[in-house]
Amino acid sequence: MQCVRVWRELRPLCRAQLSAWASTRTQSQAAGTRLDLSGIYPPIATPFTAEEEVDYQKLEGNLKKYAQIPFRGLVVQGSNGEYPYLTEEERVEVVRTVRRSLPGDKLLMAGSGCESTRATVQLTEKMAAAGADVVLVVTPCFYKGKMDSRALIQHFTKVADSSPVPVVLYSVPANTGLDLPLDAVVTLSQHPNIHGLKDSGGDISRIGLIVHKTKSQDFQVLAGSAGFLMAAYCVGAVGGVCALANVLGREVCELERLCVSGRWEEARVLQQRLIEPNAAVTRKLGVPALKQAMEWFGFHGGACRSPLQPLSEAEALQLKRDFSTNGWL
Amino acid sequence: MQCVRVWRELRPLCRAQLSAWASTRTQSQAAGTRLDLSGIYPPIATPFTAEEEVDYQKLEGNLKKYAQIPFRGLVVQGSNGEYPYLTEEERVEVVRTVRRSLPGDKLLMAGSGCESTRATVQLTEKMAAAGADVVLVVTPCFYKGKMDSRALIQHFTKVADSSPVPVVLYSVPANTGLDLPLDAVVTLSQHPNIHGLKDSGGDISRIGLIVHKTKSQDFQVLAGSAGFLMAAYCVGAVGGVCALANVLGREVCELERLCVSGRWEEARVLQQRLIEPNAAVTRKLGVPALKQAMEWFGFHGGACRSPLQPLSEAEALQLKRDFSTNGWL
Amino acid sequence: MQCVRVWRELRPLCRAQLSAWASTRTQSQAAGTRLDLSGIYPPIATPFTAEEEVDYQKLEGNLKKYAQIPFRGLVVQGSNGEYPYLTEEERVEVVRTVRRSLPGDKLLMAGSGCESTRATVQLTEKMAAAGADVVLVVTPCFYKGKMDSRALIQHFTKVADSSPVPVVLYSVPANTGLDLPLDAVVTLSQHPNIHGLKDSGGDISRIGLIVHKTKSQDFQVLAGSAGFLMAAYCVGAVGGVCALANVLGREVCELERLCVSGRWEEARVLQQRLIEPNAAVTRKLGVPALKQAMEWFGFHGGACRSPLQPLSEAEALQLKRDFSTNGWL
Amino acid sequence: MQCVRVWRELRPLCRAQLSAWASTRTQSQAAGTRLDLSGIYPPIATPFTAEEEVDYQKLEGNLKKYAQIPFRGLVVQGSNGEYPYLTEEERVEVVRTVRRSLPGDKLLMAGSGCESTRATVQLTEKMAAAGADVVLVVTPCFYKGKMDSRALIQHFTKVADSSPVPVVLYSVPANTGLDLPLDAVVTLSQHPNIHGLKDSGGDISRIGLIVHKTKSQDFQVLAGSAGFLMAAYCVGAVGGVCALANVLGREVCELERLCVSGRWEEARVLQQRLIEPNAAVTRKLGVPALKQAMEWFGFHGGACRSPLQPLSEAEALQLKRDFSTNGWL
Repeated sequence: MQCVRVWRELRPLCRAQLSAWASTRTQSQAAGTRLDLSGIYPPIATPFTAEEEVDYQKLEGNLKKYAQIPFRGLVVQGSNGEYPYLTEEERVEVVRTVRRSLPGDKLLMAGSGCESTRATVQLTEKMAAAGADVVLVVTPCFYKGKMDSRALIQHFTKVADSSPVPVVLYSVPANTGLDLPLDAVVTLSQHPNIHGLKDSGGDISRIGLIVHKTKSQDFQVLAGSAGFLMAAYCVGAVGGVCALANVLGREVCELERLCVSGRWEEARVLQQRLIEPNAAVTRKLGVPALKQAMEWFGFHGGACRSPLQPLSEAEALQLKRDFSTNGWL
Repeated sequence: MQCVRVWRELRPLCRAQLSAWASTRTQSQAAGTRLDLSGIYPPIATPFTAEEEVDYQKLEGNLKKYAQIPFRGLVVQGSNGEYPYLTEEERVEVVRTVRRSLPGDKLLMAGSGCESTRATVQLTEKMAAAGADVVLVVTPCFYKGKMDSRALIQHFTKVADSSPVPVVLYSVPANTGLDLPLDAVVTLSQHPNIHGLKDSGGDISRIGLIVHKTKSQDFQVLAGSAGFLMAAYCVGAVGGVCALANVLGREVCELERLCVSGRWEEARVLQQRLIEPNAAVTRKLGVPALKQAMEWFGFHGGACRSPLQPLSEAEALQLKRDFSTNGWL
Repeated sequence: MQCVRVWRELRPLCRAQLSAWASTRTQSQAAGTRLDLSGIYPPIATPFTAEEEVDYQKLEGNLKKYAQIPFRGLVVQGSNGEYPYLTEEERVEVVRTVRRSLPGDKLLMAGSGCESTRATVQLTEKMAAAGADVVLVVTPCFYKGKMDSRALIQHFTKVADSSPVPVVLYSVPANTGLDLPLDAVVTLSQHPNIHGLKDSGGDISRIGLIVHKTKSQDFQVLAGSAGFLMAAYCVGAVGGVCALANVLGREVCELERLCVSGRWEEARVLQQRLIEPNAAVTRKLGVPALKQAMEWFGFHGGACRSPLQPLSEAEALQLKRDFSTNGWL
Repeated sequence: MQCVRVWRELRPLCRAQLSAWASTRTQSQAAGTRLDLSGIYPPIATPFTAEEEVDYQKLEGNLKKYAQIPFRGLVVQGSNGEYPYLTEEERVEVVRTVRRSLPGDKLLMAGSGCESTRATVQLTEKMAAAGADVVLVVTPCFYKGKMDSRALIQHFTKVADSSPVPVVLYSVPANTGLDLPLDAVVTLSQHPNIHGLKDSGGDISRIGLIVHKTKSQDFQVLAGSAGFLMAAYCVGAVGGVCALANVLGREVCELERLCVSGRWEEARVLQQRLIEPNAAVTRKLGVPALKQAMEWFGFHGGACRSPLQPLSEAEALQLKRDFSTNGWL
């Protein structure tokens, strides 16, 4: 009923808008410029020095290793990149650094979401100028009680209208306390410059329904976690942005390959072994655990910026167990 | 960490218990009595007369129609059966009635969960005596703050110890406000008389992990909704208890067949068309909607017991739309 | 907006109903039969034997002690009475037992809420016949998604229409996952047989607003916990149903006296010392803690029915600390 | 138990720290520099031009009017100031502007909370340099799963250690999805530069307990809303930061006066009339409603920055009704 009401209010606006979008889309599709997002992306972590400065050297060290893994690209400043702890200058500089190292066939998807629309518009432009191929725009969330479909559709429309590069929507309720409403996703999927959604909520019925209801838009859904990656492929997602890919990148890409080639039995065995370590580096123990596990697997992790704390001893043991009982350590 | 603590407290108890269980299990498995739960079950609705009495005649009418659909069996008094609104006598009598009609090769799974352990033990016995092949035991939930793994393991162990028939655990957080904790499921999966779990929460990573961690127990997971049925099969579930199967029974069984035979592309198309009507008759509009949709598809639905109210006109329209836009009406 | 919609649907019904109620009320008020609920009530615990049978003897032992405390009455089968673990026969028998012991000037308020309207109507009659002066009717909650104002107004209206004794509404979201909506309370406050509300949610703005919006109805609000008793008096409540009164009955009555006589400074000092022990025997450690604390203060507590477990050693220590650091042990 | 664990880990740290704090405190208290925070503060709104630029002229217009109301001071960049939508430069410039207008006997409390500790430390210094008498520091919240007592105690301790002006903690779960844990508040209350807490959660038992457990620290609690202002005074708070004071400033100050002078009966009548308009401009309809109501009462409100949307017609009607039915319009 909520949807119905919103739609009624938006209808006059939307009719005009959608037909404008539609014509643009036809052109861009005719020109073959629709971006293929399918594949696996690690949402890379940001290494810091002992003084909590961004450690660009260590970052480049990680990038070299990632270059050897068949990723579709990298997400810079997803939730695991501690982006809320970076200044705007740092956010842009990290993207610039990644751009320099990234092979030309890999996509650079940069997080450019801010709380206000105007700040998001501006950061989106800077990210594009710094070399982002795509921007990933998280839902604003501080005034969560007011972030209904009407407000979110306006926000993302303004951002996408002005963005020089394609936009991917980003819903991550564990951090924002807010799920981008389904009806907003469906409406926004019709915008010619909104190419997809990263959904980290993990409600698999919702993901299946989004694929179903945006079928005619060539709209692409990326799973926001390795924990439900296989299930997401199963209902129609085209890839994943997976924190665990920072640690077990080859394995996550192997899971992708098995799903895409329809080898579901093998995929299931691998998927099941990834759930527990994935939960450990995300929901259960967070970014400090992700960075700790990166160290074990040959990457630069290190400490987080404060107020994120290092793992306690008990947490580190738990983390180790979640990898070892599944045969990864 | 919660799990660890609970396990420490339970370890002395469990060592002894588990080895006792283990020996029983070996015997029962040797004897080939392990029950195969795989397949689709509608959790049948309870029809009422205009005076809100159980309408056994209409119930039998529905049973005749269900007999022609390739269900594995029926669930009597799952959440959709309005069991909290039935007296104990009615609950047993409904099971007795279903038993009389049900073909011998179909399973009768009867809900026997109550708030107290003693009441659950007693009703479980009555259900078995009335002809249930299996009992489905929901988590007690009124004192949710105290229903931790320790309490729930004790509860289900006592019930399973004394039950004359196999037990299936039942976790349905939308109604109970409580998710049966993963560590409790894993511990309970080792009980020789606990054969599986109906999980209605829909967290697909959790379902995959439960399958993974109970692999050695021949423990069977049933999806508690048609909305995530395909995804559940994909990560290792063996069947589903699906409200929607009361309405679109053949279609849900067809989805099962496609999943089981590995025809995932066809399965996906069908699954996607089932999500929205499924949501309408469960989470969105509830049992009154399920019963309304049953009427449209040739079954007896009718009114619910009070305080459940009939659908408003707007809700009925919404329901119709959710079926028609997916091509079912 | 929700309220507005509901009201529109209910208006035709309600106009007629309210005017009917109004005339009844006038008569009953003219006849001076409006019940004064003001004061403190312990929601008494139910003692069990080692075999988990109701221990009527120990119950009577407690009643004798309570008789010496200036309570307004007793609540039999509030949440702390483990009523969801009692059979209907036990529920009625406990009320009968209390009636026999209770001095004539004390009120007996008996919980008669069930999930279905018809069961609630029947149990209400039995409770009245067993000697209840008032019934306390909890919100049905299993189908929480459907328990909107429309359903709840219908439910409580039917119960109140047929109840031989006055009805008090009961909202306890920690157990039911459901807050009786404000607009439903306001509508129901106009029913001549609904005399008040026990609100255990503790949202003090809501309590103040309920008092404000039912001012013309002589509707009485009882705080459902000693943790916010003083604040509730401050915004217009007339009493409290407080688990802690089972343990520190005199002290809770003393707090009432200080509030009622406007000695707020002294009240504040006492109130502050009661918050932590109150939290311990309710939200934090639950009924097992309440019963343990009762033992320390000379009452019969004992074990709970399964699945409620006895306190662990660590929990018992925590409980003791929460009483001793506030000077009660 | 959580608290116990945290405390154990923190004990070595804290012993040293607390004794260091203790000596500082003695000095500062001896020197009589402890800041008296008691009284009412409007958390002022930020007016914008049609182009969404900060409208400093309208801001000064409002300040002139506020100067005639007996506020204790102003909160600049609480949640109602749309601070997450301002750049750092704007945040500081707004404080500078307020400082110029504010009479010398009024406190300027400036929000300086950011997600990272280092950004909060820096902004705190800038706010002090711009003329803030006190800073209000909100809990970081993006990584809510990791913001436990350990992390938050470290964060606030570092900020308070380096802040040139007194610090007030700020807990606002409706926006942050996070309640500053009680044990963290109690520990932090012992820091000589942390003078109080603004609690917008509204759990009155918690507020009473915080007052009780920090009694020896001269720690001051401010209610974060006019909806529970009287109840908060009643359990020991010393003032309030109330969105509604932007609209009905004199009335909120009158409520303060009645509470402080013990005229509880009159206070109750006034408090009850303020709950509904307060809810309308906060939880129910948010900052756009606050700004709309400001217009009705002679202040500059105007539009919010995007993505906050203007009220719909229905919402504006609802807002008007919530003021008029309580006699304010």
